[in-house]
Amino acid sequence: MQEWFETEIRVRYAETDQMGIVHHSNYLIWFEFARSEYCRSKGFSYLDMERDESLLVVAEAYCRFKSPAFYEDLLTLRVKIAKIKSRSIQFIYELYRASDRTMIAHGETLHVVTDANKKVKILPEHYKKLLLGDSA
Amino acid sequence: MQEWFETEIRVRYAETDQMGIVHHSNYLIWFEFARSEYCRSKGFSYLDMERDESLLVVAEAYCRFKSPAFYEDLLTLRVKIAKIKSRSIQFIYELYRASDRTMIAHGETLHVVTDANKKVKILPEHYKKLLLGDSA
Amino acid sequence: MQEWFETEIRVRYAETDQMGIVHHSNYLIWFEFARSEYCRSKGFSYLDMERDESLLVVAEAYCRFKSPAFYEDLLTLRVKIAKIKSRSIQFIYELYRASDRTMIAHGETLHVVTDANKKVKILPEHYKKLLLGDSA
Amino acid sequence: MQEWFETEIRVRYAETDQMGIVHHSNYLIWFEFARSEYCRSKGFSYLDMERDESLLVVAEAYCRFKSPAFYEDLLTLRVKIAKIKSRSIQFIYELYRASDRTMIAHGETLHVVTDANKKVKILPEHYKKLLLGDSA
Repeated sequence: MQEWFETEIRVRYAETDQMGIVHHSNYLIWFEFARSEYCRSKGFSYLDMERDESLLVVAEAYCRFKSPAFYEDLLTLRVKIAKIKSRSIQFIYELYRASDRTMIAHGETLHVVTDANKKVKILPEHYKKLLLGDSA
Repeated sequence: MQEWFETEIRVRYAETDQMGIVHHSNYLIWFEFARSEYCRSKGFSYLDMERDESLLVVAEAYCRFKSPAFYEDLLTLRVKIAKIKSRSIQFIYELYRASDRTMIAHGETLHVVTDANKKVKILPEHYKKLLLGDSA
Repeated sequence: MQEWFETEIRVRYAETDQMGIVHHSNYLIWFEFARSEYCRSKGFSYLDMERDESLLVVAEAYCRFKSPAFYEDLLTLRVKIAKIKSRSIQFIYELYRASDRTMIAHGETLHVVTDANKKVKILPEHYKKLLLGDSA
Repeated sequence: MQEWFETEIRVRYAETDQMGIVHHSNYLIWFEFARSEYCRSKGFSYLDMERDESLLVVAEAYCRFKSPAFYEDLLTLRVKIAKIKSRSIQFIYELYRASDRTMIAHGETLHVVTDANKKVKILPEHYKKLLLGDSA
């Protein structure tokens, strides 16, 4: 399997809620940010795929919240592809607080590949190669 | 000038921040919700306008925060058109807590009318009539 | 097991993304809204529990996205308690478009009960009774 | 007056809406992010002020949207203090797309200083000095 790809994110005040911690809905936004950065590191972007009529639609999302994240925390987001099939891709994620290596959360998202009309299609070979870093 | 159009909104937990009040960025989302409901009450929707290639792009937004709103508050949102010109529309808003009539905030948004390529255009007469409730 | 509790939600423009559908992170916000409304229908609120130092912290969240939701859709949100233990509660959800009964998504959230210091504690008996509608 | 403080932000997919541009409510979140980074660059954080019972509550927010921002844009956020009085602070902002220096938006926020009970108070001298970079 692949190596983890890492990126960083700083918690915004707007991402907290009155429990004094990051509201759980933001984790899915962060997972998506990690996917974006992962694609950019492989030399392409969601935008390229969208213009090419290959949309990555989220079919499932799961997150296990282990320890709360706080305003201004610097978090390390790790992402990698767990499974890649002809019509779907599964990403997995880990989220750590950089300062004390506390595991904040882990999760996974499953995506189906669709055309512009949201009809499921086969993931084009060149994107599969790019996503896996040339190995298919 | 027009009468106020009123709608209600209940504050969501996700809209609070660690100060224990509604995060100020949500007010612009609520103003937009009020605009939406206003249009629907006049018999059309943003979607109709979008399909008709008349987009209402936000050019300016202002909000004065008078008193905080809290999780689970039932808020009365009031909106009306303050100015309507050939290429722009200004909406104004007031936001009250229904239970004690505390004024939470007031604000305004200015919109320019554009086509699908974001090029400014003249607001079609039939939308002008609909927005003003048949008086143009 | 319990009956479904139903509430309604109208999709806001701000909840869409450039794919022209509701961004998937909003579903967790809607699930939380359903939980809130469920508690209020049982005669209490998250706020009461928070003041009572019984916080419902999200430990896990899962959502299966079946069919996209669109701006201005009126959605029926159903929620019920699937499992209630001494220190945790599991809610399950279903989301339909009211107009054509299309299933938009289903999901579940697992919560642990904590005190104000986020230390896991036993769910007080009176809240357990309220949540289950007097049956414990 | 002060020099601009600059920070960068990359547009997230979740920040777009179905018009294919960044939803306008996100600009206030970005202004707040700029304020945060500004304080951190001066050696303290909102958190320090909050623990010290000096809250910066947003009293007014204004934003002029000049040109749309898009998914994956790398944006330069500039912030500085325009006015600092005994009980209030005004920040002003400019937002550029780094690649072509297009001005995306500019705005301002006015904050009042309050204690933990939201009662307006005088801004402590040491925070005033820190915010202005030692000159008061």
